[in-house]
Amino acid sequence: MQIGIIGAGTCDHNLAKLAYDTGYYIAKNKASLICGGLGGVMEEACRGAKRASGITIGILPGFSLHEANPYLDIKIVTGFSHARNIIIVRSSQAIISIGGEYGTLSEIAFALKLNIPIIGLKTWNLGNNVPIIKAKNPKEAVELALKLGLEKCYED
Amino acid sequence: MQIGIIGAGTCDHNLAKLAYDTGYYIAKNKASLICGGLGGVMEEACRGAKRASGITIGILPGFSLHEANPYLDIKIVTGFSHARNIIIVRSSQAIISIGGEYGTLSEIAFALKLNIPIIGLKTWNLGNNVPIIKAKNPKEAVELALKLGLEKCYED
Amino acid sequence: MQIGIIGAGTCDHNLAKLAYDTGYYIAKNKASLICGGLGGVMEEACRGAKRASGITIGILPGFSLHEANPYLDIKIVTGFSHARNIIIVRSSQAIISIGGEYGTLSEIAFALKLNIPIIGLKTWNLGNNVPIIKAKNPKEAVELALKLGLEKCYED
Amino acid sequence: MQIGIIGAGTCDHNLAKLAYDTGYYIAKNKASLICGGLGGVMEEACRGAKRASGITIGILPGFSLHEANPYLDIKIVTGFSHARNIIIVRSSQAIISIGGEYGTLSEIAFALKLNIPIIGLKTWNLGNNVPIIKAKNPKEAVELALKLGLEKCYED
Repeated sequence: MQIGIIGAGTCDHNLAKLAYDTGYYIAKNKASLICGGLGGVMEEACRGAKRASGITIGILPGFSLHEANPYLDIKIVTGFSHARNIIIVRSSQAIISIGGEYGTLSEIAFALKLNIPIIGLKTWNLGNNVPIIKAKNPKEAVELALKLGLEKCYED
Repeated sequence: MQIGIIGAGTCDHNLAKLAYDTGYYIAKNKASLICGGLGGVMEEACRGAKRASGITIGILPGFSLHEANPYLDIKIVTGFSHARNIIIVRSSQAIISIGGEYGTLSEIAFALKLNIPIIGLKTWNLGNNVPIIKAKNPKEAVELALKLGLEKCYED
Repeated sequence: MQIGIIGAGTCDHNLAKLAYDTGYYIAKNKASLICGGLGGVMEEACRGAKRASGITIGILPGFSLHEANPYLDIKIVTGFSHARNIIIVRSSQAIISIGGEYGTLSEIAFALKLNIPIIGLKTWNLGNNVPIIKAKNPKEAVELALKLGLEKCYED
Repeated sequence: MQIGIIGAGTCDHNLAKLAYDTGYYIAKNKASLICGGLGGVMEEACRGAKRASGITIGILPGFSLHEANPYLDIKIVTGFSHARNIIIVRSSQAIISIGGEYGTLSEIAFALKLNIPIIGLKTWNLGNNVPIIKAKNPKEAVELALKLGLEKCYED
């Protein structure tokens, strides 16, 4: 299973810890981690996943693999700038959103549009009618992602 | 100047009227109207623009120009599905969002990310810190779009 | 009808003349001209089309409308780099290829893949089994494009 | 290192054997194999790579991971149709082209445009001035790809 992590390219210590732990639990559960491949939340999540010997995949926006963070195993160089966001979403069976700014909001919107389960950790709150599932901590976020992602697979 | 209109592919009578009037005022002000080229808000806006003899441009998601609404002059066939949303945003000097669901939310997110002025008519409310400018009616929305779009052009 | 012109961003005097005349005849025949929006063959074709009061559309690869050549009416800003080539192809009912290097070759390949008629003026020769139709001059190229593009429309 | 394999989605026994052996040697040399993720040459190459316990990555054109061939480890779902071809090219340090039709031609064109080394096995011949390097057999193709890909990495 491929679990997506989305979040900003820079982040404070608090979000960094959430991202690291989320990446760690994804890898512990033998899922692959897919993300935008850059710094901040993406890098911390990949660092956590590599600590647990997981596989990390980055969908890079630019023209060179040299923009990848140092914890990426698989580097996909798209050259599509922010339009690569939808590839991260489509390639995930479930998504965990950690913090995040406008780029992350575009990914949340695509996930909602495409009916891909999305779990939030201190992320955008779009009101009660929008199905972003709040998790209390990284461990719960990953458990929810695995459960909902698996259900989604059976449906498709 | 190219003004974008974003909104859902189906809409109620109320939003349809807003879309038609907005398209009409864009054309009256000699701006071109750019949108996703399909039905609902997009079609009504194009219909309004053609009533005032304007130019309408559709950035279509699919593989055929036959999915275009009947009021499009220029049909851009992308084959990029929802990823074509960012092309609508990038090609607009300012954007007017009318109603809208998750696809529209992705376009708002890209506009915010790319610093393109966005004016809202009964659209997503993302809180006070997010610069979506509320307009009272289509006429005001178009006046704001023209003013902010022009300022943006000078900056770039 | 939208006729595509493809060719390199720089060109010698000979190709420039072919491009200018081709753009001119497209406009004279009331078709719209679609191209990559930059210099060289694209710019000369647009200049020719504007001489005959035609409509010119540019599918730009970068992030800004300021890279457009001065003869473009409609500026589509994709941010997709060379991947925008397929949008030019998909949006054309027929394509005229003038000279051209590797970018043009990618467009020819997509046109062949998508079964869009392609007419060549001093362009890539891919052997006798590949249906690039040679034209003797710009006038003949445009006549062929209009005829084959119309047939394609009826088929679709 | 990520080596790309490009070729058609259906192929005869002869090309299938070339693809299988090329995938096998890529994996034996500890490189990852990246391809379009579908059948034919892509599937045979992945099958060969898995025989040697390699890692296989597919950049899928459609909307679902269910179109992936059964030998893919990493499934990237783009929804970009043929425009995903440029992602395969950009993500490869070197490319081996096996047979191939118009889709493959578009990938060769992008590789030439982006200056990514391309090695051919019974593939398109574009004349003596076009730097497609002919290999005698899969083993030589992989050796060339590794050597040229490594040189390219140092340059960048």
